Amino acid sequence: MKRVYNFSAGPAVLPEEVLKIAADEMLCYGDSGMSVMEMSHRSKVFDDIINAAEADLRKLMNIPNNYKVLFLQGGATTQFSMVPMNLMKQGVVDFIHTGAWSEKAIEEASRYGTVHVIASSEDNDFTCIPDLTNLTISEDADYVHMVQNNTIYGTRFTSLPNTLGKVLVSDMSSNILSEPFKVEDFGIIFAGAQKNIGPAGTTIVIIREDLITKDVLKGTPLMLQYHIHASKKSMYNTPPTYGIYICGLVFKHLLANGGVEEMYKKNLKKANLLYDYLDQSNLFKGTVNKEDRSLMNITFKTNSEDLNKKFIAEAKNHDLVNLKGHRSVGGMRASVYNAMPYDGVKALVEFMKQFESENV
Amino acid sequence: MKRVYNFSAGPAVLPEEVLKIAADEMLCYGDSGMSVMEMSHRSKVFDDIINAAEADLRKLMNIPNNYKVLFLQGGATTQFSMVPMNLMKQGVVDFIHTGAWSEKAIEEASRYGTVHVIASSEDNDFTCIPDLTNLTISEDADYVHMVQNNTIYGTRFTSLPNTLGKVLVSDMSSNILSEPFKVEDFGIIFAGAQKNIGPAGTTIVIIREDLITKDVLKGTPLMLQYHIHASKKSMYNTPPTYGIYICGLVFKHLLANGGVEEMYKKNLKKANLLYDYLDQSNLFKGTVNKEDRSLMNITFKTNSEDLNKKFIAEAKNHDLVNLKGHRSVGGMRASVYNAMPYDGVKALVEFMKQFESENV
Repeated sequence: MKRVYNFSAGPAVLPEEVLKIAADEMLCYGDSGMSVMEMSHRSKVFDDIINAAEADLRKLMNIPNNYKVLFLQGGATTQFSMVPMNLMKQGVVDFIHTGAWSEKAIEEASRYGTVHVIASSEDNDFTCIPDLTNLTISEDADYVHMVQNNTIYGTRFTSLPNTLGKVLVSDMSSNILSEPFKVEDFGIIFAGAQKNIGPAGTTIVIIREDLITKDVLKGTPLMLQYHIHASKKSMYNTPPTYGIYICGLVFKHLLANGGVEEMYKKNLKKANLLYDYLDQSNLFKGTVNKEDRSLMNITFKTNSEDLNKKFIAEAKNHDLVNLKGHRSVGGMRASVYNAMPYDGVKALVEFMKQFESENV
Repeated sequence: MKRVYNFSAGPAVLPEEVLKIAADEMLCYGDSGMSVMEMSHRSKVFDDIINAAEADLRKLMNIPNNYKVLFLQGGATTQFSMVPMNLMKQGVVDFIHTGAWSEKAIEEASRYGTVHVIASSEDNDFTCIPDLTNLTISEDADYVHMVQNNTIYGTRFTSLPNTLGKVLVSDMSSNILSEPFKVEDFGIIFAGAQKNIGPAGTTIVIIREDLITKDVLKGTPLMLQYHIHASKKSMYNTPPTYGIYICGLVFKHLLANGGVEEMYKKNLKKANLLYDYLDQSNLFKGTVNKEDRSLMNITFKTNSEDLNKKFIAEAKNHDLVNLKGHRSVGGMRASVYNAMPYDGVKALVEFMKQFESENV
């Protein structure tokens, strides 16, 4: 069994320590006599698991008491429906459009109300974060939607829009827990777990309590109403129990390793190693604005599609896998989430240097 | 590490062989160099996993080619919304009401159209399946909804309603793969995986192709439209990859052990062992009509709440766990899904005999 360096954009690398615990506990968790997969979600032993996961996430992110933490299903994509169905009262949303994921969210929100794109980097092929000064926030906007980190293009917000008091909703699927955020700055933070936390199929929603109301759009499925999940502590129906358990193991692992502040330091170090190399390379070039570079998804290219292909293939032979860029961008993408060790990025940069020396 | 006999109603016991494979492969699946949890859902290696899972399920259930198999999220509860939102054209549904799960489905369907309860066992406290002769099928019914096996009450249909050609939708969450069904008899079969298949968070939907249309109720979230999931082969967004992998392992395990026919024989043998004992016991009594007894969830009581409690507590000390009945029924419930070995039921019956001898 030889593990590779896995630069997948998601589902993505998990801490090896966590996988080892999961393997060890697969047939018997503690003295329960069963796998976490086999446990009733109504049992005391699972209750302890989900409560610990929530408490640890609260600790990691300093989540204030007036925010609920929900463990849901359906990924960020389900949140694209759930947010408008629950938050639209006047039927207007302001979007900051930064790529494929805001586009999908816009498409879905448009089915329930009016979308105003108040800033967009579409004209720049999403290679940057749009200028956030002098945003025209709609007077009747129910909320402002942003995508904190853009997995496909490799950009990230380094400051927040001034929403003039409107609720800010952030899709943090690809950078939650990778750097410190002030939860108070947001009305809702949501994230599919499968990039920076745990297995696909668990969605984390952090939502300010005053936004949880029964006043939802007509026809909103019960499963898509926040107040139902909040009132039942994510147990309205059977939650994705095993996924929540793995998320909990990851939270514990992060706490034991210095928490989000320490992750942020490590992530800066990892990203800088690769970006610094890119900035002096004669072969490889980063594809986005320097100021807007993502710490999680690092996109780059050579000047030839053939060389890109050759690089991806040879990298794979060196156990550096899933480096192919998204089809809409091309080139390469190295996703270096929390769980990617520094040594993985180092190995990648070493290989890039070697490849450059052989191909320039 | 000592495993118990786990009679949980769900999430529930899984085959030990499957858990062992999952533990072994946790850090590295095949020669991929990574856990299944870490794999891109767009990768070749995961594609092989989901395709094999679908092919094996098709084999197990003899699923005809004009049916799609979807791996979704959100459990049966999400199907309670999804079915009416996708199938309602005239706005009328006929329900056969057999307990808590049909009640929840009725509640949700009523929010989208008119529900006619064409048969109900409510007056009998759901201790039987209602008479299915001379059902009044609504002329404009879009479909007829039934719950094949009632987890809470311990009843099961042994024949199908004559729907006069209307589409039959069956919630098979607690008995899918436990006995043979003719898929052709149904328009939709759905099942949360967490009882008879795999981990919570994966939902299996088997749907006849002509029922998959873009003509859905206005405002149906994209994630709740069958045609979107069907056209993307369950990959419209990131599916619950690890759950699908475990389901696939269970399917392979079933095929290697004689398939559904063999499971059915074993399930009859297990259930009969317990029911035969109940029928001659002076202490324990089954709680439902003999003809309608579930093979999966066996409900029984003593004549005293105190003795029930004592039994449940002492059984736990004998590593026979999760025998407490649902709060709405009381008494005891032994869930004996496919993965519960015969020896588990035997151990339970032995213990019941001992308890009876000590407490009558």
